[in-house]
Amino acid sequence: MAENLTRASYTVESLLAVTVRVFNERGYDGTSMEDLSRAAGISKSSIYHHVRGKEELLRLAVGRALDALFATLEEPKAVEGRPVDRLEHVVRRTAEVLLAELPYVTLLLRVRGNTATEQWALERRRDFDHRVAELLQEAVTAGELRADVEPRLATRLLFGMINSVVEWYRPGQGGTEGLPEAVVQLAFDGLRAR
Amino acid sequence: MAENLTRASYTVESLLAVTVRVFNERGYDGTSMEDLSRAAGISKSSIYHHVRGKEELLRLAVGRALDALFATLEEPKAVEGRPVDRLEHVVRRTAEVLLAELPYVTLLLRVRGNTATEQWALERRRDFDHRVAELLQEAVTAGELRADVEPRLATRLLFGMINSVVEWYRPGQGGTEGLPEAVVQLAFDGLRAR
Repeated sequence: MAENLTRASYTVESLLAVTVRVFNERGYDGTSMEDLSRAAGISKSSIYHHVRGKEELLRLAVGRALDALFATLEEPKAVEGRPVDRLEHVVRRTAEVLLAELPYVTLLLRVRGNTATEQWALERRRDFDHRVAELLQEAVTAGELRADVEPRLATRLLFGMINSVVEWYRPGQGGTEGLPEAVVQLAFDGLRAR
Repeated sequence: MAENLTRASYTVESLLAVTVRVFNERGYDGTSMEDLSRAAGISKSSIYHHVRGKEELLRLAVGRALDALFATLEEPKAVEGRPVDRLEHVVRRTAEVLLAELPYVTLLLRVRGNTATEQWALERRRDFDHRVAELLQEAVTAGELRADVEPRLATRLLFGMINSVVEWYRPGQGGTEGLPEAVVQLAFDGLRAR
């Protein structure tokens, strides 16, 4: 029984890896169950054995990215200490999650459409942004961050910088070790030499 | 004759405004001449009177964005003075051009495909990024910008922040006056209070 469960979950996970790649290449709307069956090398009925269909695969895939992002907000360094240090931790960890779960976060950031799952993903993404914006506001109130840039705008520009990584970073080209730290340094201290 | 030319160029310009909106909504690949004719309220043969086809409209549209961006590099404040001040000017002006030419820059940033025009647009975009990266490197060499973040990475994160504006800014929601300045402040001095 335990072995069956392990096998089943392994299959869903590897199916998900293929699914995310195809969704990112062809777009969610442009992908058929036929495309997924061909890319995974298994029959459509084998896929339906694990999931109800394309929308459930999308939910599992973007859910993986969202869970990883939300988990960073519960880490000790995100809940204890000065607001500015908690925000810095969340920014660093968000960049790390983005690199660790690159195809899943890429898919999440490209979600646009009108299905219930896409709406749910957009709403959870907004929740996450909102939690970070609140943390940023706390740090402004504490006098730790500059008050002359409106916090909502600052959050958007901050995520703009972090999320852009999915557009240009390609795994295997190296140089990721320094990336989360570079994001933190630019976000908090800017480009200027001191 | 002069009047005819004026009328003709006005028509191309208004056709372009419609085209860019449709390209941004449906994607370049997903747009037919039929779609453009319907959206513009003129016949396909009227469109062909002005341009050879869809690809020429794309070239005119992204060309408008590229010309505006490259023009910032030739402005006096971009060519005279300390490298850091020249870079600051280019960053501010890039954000201003993005807001002033929002649909055109949005289209430019979404170009992906394989037609000659798309390849040309991608190459000119890379040229622009490269020119800014060189300016950034100059400012690092002059000791005006921090040397601990690799200039190519810094340029990518910087454009990530600026370009993200097309993803979330909607005209008419206000708050643009402060946007280029906020971009400059975050990029050069970061979020931290001093």
